[in-house]
This record gives sequence, structure tokens and C-alpha cells, in this order.
Amino acid sequence: MKREVITALEGIVGSKFVITDEETMRPYECDGLSVYTEMPACVVLPASTEEVMAIMSLCYKYKINVVARGAGTGLSAGALPLSDGLLLSLARLNQILDIDKTTSLAVVQPGVRNLAISEQASREGLYYAPDPSSQIACSIGGNVAENAGGVHCLKYGLTVHNVVSAVVVTVEGEKLVLGGAAFDLPGFDLLALMTGSEGMLGIVTEITVRLLPLPDVARVILAGFDSVENAANAVNDIIANGIIPAGLEMMDAYAISAAEDFAKAGYPKEADALLLCELDGSEEDVNHQLSQTQQILQQAGATTLKISESEDERARMWKGRKSAFPAVGRISPDYYCMDGTIPRSELASVLNQIHQLSRFYGLRVANVFHAGDGNLHPLILFDANVQGELEKTEEFGAEILRICVEAGGCITGEHGVGVEKINQMHHQFNDAELAQFHRVKAAWDAEGLLNPGKGIPEPKHCQEHKTLIHSHNTEGSSNG
Amino acid sequence: MKREVITALEGIVGSKFVITDEETMRPYECDGLSVYTEMPACVVLPASTEEVMAIMSLCYKYKINVVARGAGTGLSAGALPLSDGLLLSLARLNQILDIDKTTSLAVVQPGVRNLAISEQASREGLYYAPDPSSQIACSIGGNVAENAGGVHCLKYGLTVHNVVSAVVVTVEGEKLVLGGAAFDLPGFDLLALMTGSEGMLGIVTEITVRLLPLPDVARVILAGFDSVENAANAVNDIIANGIIPAGLEMMDAYAISAAEDFAKAGYPKEADALLLCELDGSEEDVNHQLSQTQQILQQAGATTLKISESEDERARMWKGRKSAFPAVGRISPDYYCMDGTIPRSELASVLNQIHQLSRFYGLRVANVFHAGDGNLHPLILFDANVQGELEKTEEFGAEILRICVEAGGCITGEHGVGVEKINQMHHQFNDAELAQFHRVKAAWDAEGLLNPGKGIPEPKHCQEHKTLIHSHNTEGSSNG
Repeated sequence: MKREVITALEGIVGSKFVITDEETMRPYECDGLSVYTEMPACVVLPASTEEVMAIMSLCYKYKINVVARGAGTGLSAGALPLSDGLLLSLARLNQILDIDKTTSLAVVQPGVRNLAISEQASREGLYYAPDPSSQIACSIGGNVAENAGGVHCLKYGLTVHNVVSAVVVTVEGEKLVLGGAAFDLPGFDLLALMTGSEGMLGIVTEITVRLLPLPDVARVILAGFDSVENAANAVNDIIANGIIPAGLEMMDAYAISAAEDFAKAGYPKEADALLLCELDGSEEDVNHQLSQTQQILQQAGATTLKISESEDERARMWKGRKSAFPAVGRISPDYYCMDGTIPRSELASVLNQIHQLSRFYGLRVANVFHAGDGNLHPLILFDANVQGELEKTEEFGAEILRICVEAGGCITGEHGVGVEKINQMHHQFNDAELAQFHRVKAAWDAEGLLNPGKGIPEPKHCQEHKTLIHSHNTEGSSNG
Repeated sequence: MKREVITALEGIVGSKFVITDEETMRPYECDGLSVYTEMPACVVLPASTEEVMAIMSLCYKYKINVVARGAGTGLSAGALPLSDGLLLSLARLNQILDIDKTTSLAVVQPGVRNLAISEQASREGLYYAPDPSSQIACSIGGNVAENAGGVHCLKYGLTVHNVVSAVVVTVEGEKLVLGGAAFDLPGFDLLALMTGSEGMLGIVTEITVRLLPLPDVARVILAGFDSVENAANAVNDIIANGIIPAGLEMMDAYAISAAEDFAKAGYPKEADALLLCELDGSEEDVNHQLSQTQQILQQAGATTLKISESEDERARMWKGRKSAFPAVGRISPDYYCMDGTIPRSELASVLNQIHQLSRFYGLRVANVFHAGDGNLHPLILFDANVQGELEKTEEFGAEILRICVEAGGCITGEHGVGVEKINQMHHQFNDAELAQFHRVKAAWDAEGLLNPGKGIPEPKHCQEHKTLIHSHNTEGSSNG
């Protein structure tokens, strides 16, 4: 990067917050999907919307690519730096600016950790509902960029349903306010468009989120099943009966056994499938729903049933689920976490297909996922030291996503597209749809400076067109 | 319109469904805001997505403006025709294609009436939650175009929260599928962008909506207050206590008295303000919430309290609210219905300001509105036959919207911008924000053929710029 740009950046944020030496930049070379790494040209850490505006304006002038980064916990390499680009870390924008009990709104900066909002709001008897597994570490800015989900999202919606407004800095360095505290704003819903746009449309520098009152009571039912199919059907039965649990999670045999060995959560190790169903609300309502749900689970063939009798027990039951990923990490040298979503009614059929593929590829799969949302997280267990096993895993993973799309679902539930799934977007969308995404992208960033190469692939006919031009040019130059 | 275009349109939909004679076109000259009228060049009624694609492709070729129209119940002249444009009525796309109990999804064409969905879904124990007051007549396509609300939206969300996918025909005549049945789709949220876009981005020809299980029980509490302020505070108290009613409506003195005379709903005519609070869910939960709400209302100073003891009584209580608009029509020669939204916490203050303005302008105001959402509907009572009173009413209305924006609210809750409020968009958004709306518009419709002149005004500096150019040109031509 040109010296004059670095000097200008130092003028904006102070030289301490412009990093160019490789050693200090190392932590920024990847996000949570660490198979992809790249060193940026520089890392800049602004501390205010105004500083972000100045940085963007400068980058726009010099046509420098910008990749924004929250806490770096993303799982699709959406925050992978570009070697010639600026990595914009929002970590210093980490203040909770306001929590208002009357309006139930919190105004926060993007670098605030997801869980920190609920921790502070709890003093007012409130909390922020979307709860990605990474909520201890992930930032609300990253949540907005990826439209993050979590256990609670079945009942309380995704990030997009819990954000009411955002301050956005455009690629030109202009400040816009999207959305607002009122119920339904006029104009196009640019806030929903920005949410989940993976840093490709603008830089979010302030976020207002809706808070909910902490429920009086929350209790968990743990139900073991001797088949995945029965558990999947039970999920549909619960919701068809009008019960929307605050969480409805499923685990299969490998996951149960790994989690139980690790967390001693009291899971039935002999079960082939396990459901964790959390009900929250007033005591009367929870009791009523508990008895209804119990009956539904029994009719669906549950072989074991346990209800949390204390907050300790409830926490222990969740601990098994929440530590399932690291627990699986203990039974296999490596694992690859997939993230596909299917209509809930297809759960049994898709899980069965994954099981068949597992045998075909000779690779074990542990399933631990948000069953109520139909959001699968198959963990493919492999050993990167065995030659060809990573490639086989990637092929298996791509097959799983293809099955999800065929079942009427999609290639990502909450981890985003990023670099990882950019090619799978062709399974999900046709060329006309991808072209429309590009036109919308161009409405914000006509020159493609914001996080280029992520999220939205070129339509196939363009790729073919480019390949033709390219091969033509190559021919031309070899001839010339 | 050129004869060759009319012939081509007749070739697409059949000559019966291309209307060009003035008498038959008369019903299409306005929507529900009938102060604005315009006769279109022709009216076309397609019967399928394919026909819409062919029409759009033809119009794109000939650069003909297109205004789409649902049931014509809109209240902001969003479906006002253009004299040189084609009016595209979606009334013949009126089939419910599928209602699926397992997935709780309904696939419908845009011309289906809102209430018809719930009527048919009720056979499966389901219903469609968003319920605009016009739900007997309004169409789901219009609901999507305006992001319609209703009494239920406090608890169950706006249209945008209840639509899962849509088939859209672009201005070029291409078909796109936005959204999908899976929980969180990758790519930009173009479905949310399309919802509420007032016919300016594309033509929706098929919609998949989420259905909810019919609640076991619904009951209404009717609470009278001797001040608007106490009622407004009670609204905030209910929600601050974690109760989200299925409807929370407020009426003030003129509205109570007019509605009671008209509907004999059992309203306390001596009250200065009335709250209708509906609670739904399981019997246990409703009973628990009823007793909590009763206590909150009493503490907030309710002077009368009545709980519906039967479905008949509940229907009667709602009848007063639902007929409040026509009832007010009986006590005044004319009325003008406003639609602004404010943060709930500002209710008392804003209602007080409206009351002061009412005295200043010497015009009565009846307030009847979705209090839980902060969505105001002040009805300004006037007499169009008294000279200057319409102008005074419009001025008063603009003042009310200005107050809403100043209170952190917005210029429309559920009626849209259309033609009516296009100038007020300048109160709501600055030039940079309006420019961004235009860029997003251009990403769908670069030539501005879809419903031009509605929804999004030109940024002011552009207007000034044009005025300058215009005056310059005029000077130039007078000199030349």
C-alpha cells in the first residue's frame, strides 16, 4: 500500500492503530474458518463513525479494497483479508451506548460482544434474544453482517428480526441511518437488505436492537429416541401443535456419546437421537406447555424423558449441547462443520440421506443442530493427515448442501456464504437471480471495493463469457 | 398507446382483458385515496405469471410505464394510474394454490383477498396473522406491496415477517424467486426489499406466506380512562411487563362516542380514552395474562374495566373499533385519515400536541389507532364545502407527520407513501438516504418504468439542480 495512504490513515486513527508489520497482522489473516488465510496490506482500527467515514473516503479515492471484520468468529471466511486490501477491524467500536427500559431498545457499537448486551440488559430485566453458539466471543456487528441465528431464533427470530436501525457508512464515506425505532418505516427496507450482506454493501458503525423481557421461567425437556426418524417427526409434531419452543435442538448418536463423555450432562448414551426442548414464559404457560410437549414426545416414541427441575440442571443439559463441537473434536483428529437449512418436514429424509452418504464416503458424521429451524450442522469427522481425506470431506460436504437445496432448503443457515460457499450459490440461485444480486450490490458499491470475491458469485454465463475472452486474449497474446 | 402495443397485449391476455374505453376503465382511475384520480392509457388483466412476463417484456421494449394494482384499497394513491401508462390489474391471479398443514405454509396468487387465506386455512386449524382493517377486500399482493399491518401485527409482525417467498417478474419480464421455505437464505434479503416497495421494483405474481395455529382462546379487556395520558401510560406498562397482546388499540373521546352510537359495542361514553386489549393463546396462559393485565390497567388508573365473557361479546367489542372510521364519517361531512408512527413511549406527548393543534386549526380530531405499535390514525374532521377547510386540513395533517418524525417516528405506519406522502419523505430522510433509495430502485428498474412518481422523491439538491437547469434552459431559450 502506498506510503501516502498509510500516512493518511495514521492521520485519521493515530499511528498506533494502523498495523502493517506481518507479526502484528497475523491474528487477522483468517476468521473462524482457518483453512483460508491471507495477509492483508494493512489493518486499521478506527474508534468512531467519523473515523470510519474518513477511512472509507480515503479508500474510495485510492480505489482500495476494504474487508470489515468483527470478532473474527465467522465460519465461512467472510472476513478473509485481501493481500492488496485494507482490513477494517471494528473491535475498538465496543461501547454499549444506551439501554432503555421503557422502549426496550439498546444502542450499541458493532464491536460489542453479543452476550455483553444481555448481561448489561439483565439489570433492567431484559435480554437480547439471538444467541449464536459463539455468543461469548462474537460481536453484534458480525451478527448483523451474517444475520446470525442461534438456539432462540426459532421463537424469537434471526438477527434481522431483532435489529431496528443501523448507522451505515457507505463505500464513499457517507453516513446513512437505516430503519428506526418506529414500527414500519417508509421507503425500501434497506436495513433488512444490509443485514446478512456480509460486508459487501456498507460498514455498520452503530446498531439499535430490540430487547425482550427475561422470561419468568425456562425449563428443558430432554427426550431420547431409538431412531432419528422418530425424533425428527416429534419436532414436527411439537410445532404442528402450536408450541413454539425457545429452543428445539437435536443430536444423533455420535454427538450424544461425545457430548456426554465430555460434559456429563445426563444424556441417555444408548439413544440414537436426542431432543432438547426449552419452554419459556410465565410459570402457568410453561407448565401447560410442558405437559402438552411431554405427551407429544411420548406419542412420538420417546424412550426416555427428563425435565429440568432446577436452573442448575437446565444449565447442565445445555452444557452438553453447547460443548458438542469441541466434544466431537476429541473423538476425531479433525472435523468439518456444515451449515445447511431444510424445511422442517424434510428432516427425517435428509438425515437419512446424509447417513447413506456417510457410509459411501467412509466418513463418520455427527449431527447436532437447530431442529426446529431445520438448520443442520453435520460435522464430518476426518483426519487431515490421511492423504485425500480432506478432499473427500469437501466433496461429501458439497453433496450435503446439494441435498439441502434439492429438499427445498438452502446452503447456509447462519454461517453465511463468504468464500467457503460461493460456488454453491449456483445450486441455490439461477443466473437471473445472481445478476439481480449484483445489480443491488452495484447500487451500493459500483466499483466493487467492499469485500470483493465473497458472497455472490458471478453468474455462470458471465464466467463462461470471461473464460472465452480470457482464452481468446491468451491465444491472442501467444500469437502476438 | 400505439395500436401495435394494444394488439400485442390482446395477443397475450385475450382482447376481453385489455380495456381501453373510458367507461370500463373508470373503476381503475383511483385507489382508496380517491382525492387523486387519473385515467390510464389502458388496463390489462393477466391470468398467470407467464402472461405478466410477456406484458412486462412488451412494455420494456416500448418503454411504457406500468402501475400494478391489487384490490385498489390502498390509502396513499400508490396505485394511481399514469395517463400514458399501463395499469396492470392482478385481480385475475386470484387462486389459493396450496395450504400445507405440515409446513404451515400457504402458496397464493397476489389477487387473493387477505381474509380468504385465513378462511381456507381455518379448515386446517391455521390462519394468516396480518389483518389490515380492509382485510375483507384487500389483496395479499397489495399487502406485500405496502407491507401491510393490522391489529395483530404487534404480536405477530407485519407482512414482511409473515411472507417466506415470492415469485417476482422484473421490469424486463424475467422471473425471479425471492426467499424460500428454509429459515435463512443466503444472498441479500431481496424479499424484504421487495416487501413494501410499492410496485417500484417488480411485479409479485406468487406469494408463500407463513400460517399460524389458531389460538385456543382469545379474550378482550375493555378499559376506560379519564385521560388520554393515563391510557397511553397503561399501553407502555402492559408491554413493559412482558405482555404482548394480540391487539392493543386505543380510541379517544370523539371516536368512542361516534363508535358507540354506531355499533352499540358497550363502550363507556363518558371516558376520555378507551383501550381494547386482546389476549390469545392457551386457556391457562390467557387467564394468567388477563389477571396481570387487569391489575396493570387498574394501577394505571382505569375508570372502567370489562372482560369479554363470550365470543359474541368479543366480536361486539371489536365491532365498535372496526366501524370507528365510518362512525366518525357520520359526525362530520368529511374526514382525512392520517397514518403516522411514533415510539410507544411518546404516545401521551404526541397525542397532547395533536390536541393543541386541533384547537389552533379549529378542526376536530378523532384518534383511533394501533397503540401497541405506536401507529397513530388521527382522523381530521372537516367540511370540504367550507372554503379553505381542505387546505387547512392538509396543513394540519402535514404538521402531525412532522411531529411524528420529530418524536423519533415516521410518516407512515401501514398506508405507504404513494403519491400522498412523497413530499414528507424529505422530513424522514436526508438527501444521501434518498439518493441511496434511488440507486437501489435503479438496480431493479434503471429506466424508471415501474410506478414512477411514487414512494421516493428526488433528493432536494437534485430538485434544486433541475430547477436551476430548467430556469437556465428557459432563459437560454428565451435568449436564443
